[in-house]
Amino acid sequence: MFYVIGLGLSDEKDITLRGLEAIKGSTRVYLEAYTSILMIDKERLEGFYGKQVILADRDMVETQSDEILRSADTEDVSLLVVGDPFGATTHTDIILRARALRIPTRVIHNASIMNAAGACGLQLYNFGQTVSLVFFTDTWRPDSFYDRVQENVGLGMHTLLLLDIKVKEQSEENMARGRKIYEPPRYMSIPTAVEQLLSTEAVRGAGILAPTDTLAIALSRVGGGAEERIVAGTLQELLAAPPEVFGAPLHSLVLVGKRVHHLEVEYAETFALDPANWRRVATEVYGCALDG
Amino acid sequence: MFYVIGLGLSDEKDITLRGLEAIKGSTRVYLEAYTSILMIDKERLEGFYGKQVILADRDMVETQSDEILRSADTEDVSLLVVGDPFGATTHTDIILRARALRIPTRVIHNASIMNAAGACGLQLYNFGQTVSLVFFTDTWRPDSFYDRVQENVGLGMHTLLLLDIKVKEQSEENMARGRKIYEPPRYMSIPTAVEQLLSTEAVRGAGILAPTDTLAIALSRVGGGAEERIVAGTLQELLAAPPEVFGAPLHSLVLVGKRVHHLEVEYAETFALDPANWRRVATEVYGCALDG
Repeated sequence: MFYVIGLGLSDEKDITLRGLEAIKGSTRVYLEAYTSILMIDKERLEGFYGKQVILADRDMVETQSDEILRSADTEDVSLLVVGDPFGATTHTDIILRARALRIPTRVIHNASIMNAAGACGLQLYNFGQTVSLVFFTDTWRPDSFYDRVQENVGLGMHTLLLLDIKVKEQSEENMARGRKIYEPPRYMSIPTAVEQLLSTEAVRGAGILAPTDTLAIALSRVGGGAEERIVAGTLQELLAAPPEVFGAPLHSLVLVGKRVHHLEVEYAETFALDPANWRRVATEVYGCALDG
Repeated sequence: MFYVIGLGLSDEKDITLRGLEAIKGSTRVYLEAYTSILMIDKERLEGFYGKQVILADRDMVETQSDEILRSADTEDVSLLVVGDPFGATTHTDIILRARALRIPTRVIHNASIMNAAGACGLQLYNFGQTVSLVFFTDTWRPDSFYDRVQENVGLGMHTLLLLDIKVKEQSEENMARGRKIYEPPRYMSIPTAVEQLLSTEAVRGAGILAPTDTLAIALSRVGGGAEERIVAGTLQELLAAPPEVFGAPLHSLVLVGKRVHHLEVEYAETFALDPANWRRVATEVYGCALDG
């Protein structure tokens, strides 16, 4: 059996009992490192499972799937992924490959940021499509995400923005010289995300985002207990906040849609940088009827 | 500490290690029965946890939250919910109440149908808002869901439809006589859902759903191993299929949006009732460029 096992969102204890059982019975255990580098380190998992864990970067999962799948028709092999196997990064390719090799597969689900984002108090029902935001560079400022956000805004839906991570990036010099030396991982922070949103608004100009009139909620390490941060405010407030209020990466950002319900506003108010202004914008700009 | 713990989607082994640890340390453990009646029974959980589990129906969670929260400021109390605490049914009310009482709370996330739906091969990124479909009666055929579906269809997004369940319903006679006798639970099946969709299309007439031209994927017991069913086809094919192909409830239905990517079509083809027709509709109606 080939298992693809979601590890959940924060540490080794977020795995399910079913997932742990599959790992214990597996001959080989791979850890998909593209995302997993973020929060859980390999040695800690090895200690916890009492078992060797083989790091598999995104390239390996995509191009060396036959090695990962080797002998999975007669033994159990597990591939661990952070979050859910069908969350933000999907693992359909290797499952298709397993099927083609007639290897039985089983997916063991877990929480993903796509559903845990509900922790901010906004109803998952009221979210439109999820949108990825990539790092701008001096020469490359892709703004197709803006069209997606505009679609959600047009319907009054909330938008979950997943912020870019850069791992295993090479400098131009190292790349030119063929040296496999990688830059330290980079994670897009909330202020960077807000800057990119507002600079894109300035270019595109559809008036869907405004510093003082758009409400948003920053999420970090959802489900991570003491490390979890949920911070709500206008885009301007989020931009002006000291970076440390947002906690450690990975960050995500939710843009509040106009259909927001007063109960959602009231729940999220607990997380507001400036609760009075949060209520004011919700009432005056979003047209929410709040108590008191 | 007041814990709200997601149990995941199928049985007692889908809980996370963190969730199980919280249960073991709790003085009282409640099981939210509105949804949990579906798949996991109380006695089985009690045996598994070695601990008494108190059934809390939806009313109790909403109206007797102070009893559930009693002593949670000094002891640990857990409320178990199927799926994720912020999934299809949210538990924000009781968390707000706990906050008001200055009781520390912690949510332990798990998989929800809102993210596990990715198992059908469609990318979660390409889903619009999630829509609930309630049972029609002779006199009540609420069709506001159609507007939501139309919004998603207009953008080419996929739609996850959550199908109604009826638990603790009283017959009119028992209600009139004040007898607390409840009808057996009812779960909306895929054919019923498709019938309601098509009959609403006939009334509303925006042309967003068509028996032979709309592709959909039925989901049942996702993550439930041998009990999991994923069945893809046109609405007409789903309507005509023998009910048993859809497996045991709970059922959900995904309507495929026009922005579907050929890799999504190819992944889901494995689940198709009629793979050749699945490809034909994807190509001719959805404009997907498939290999071969």
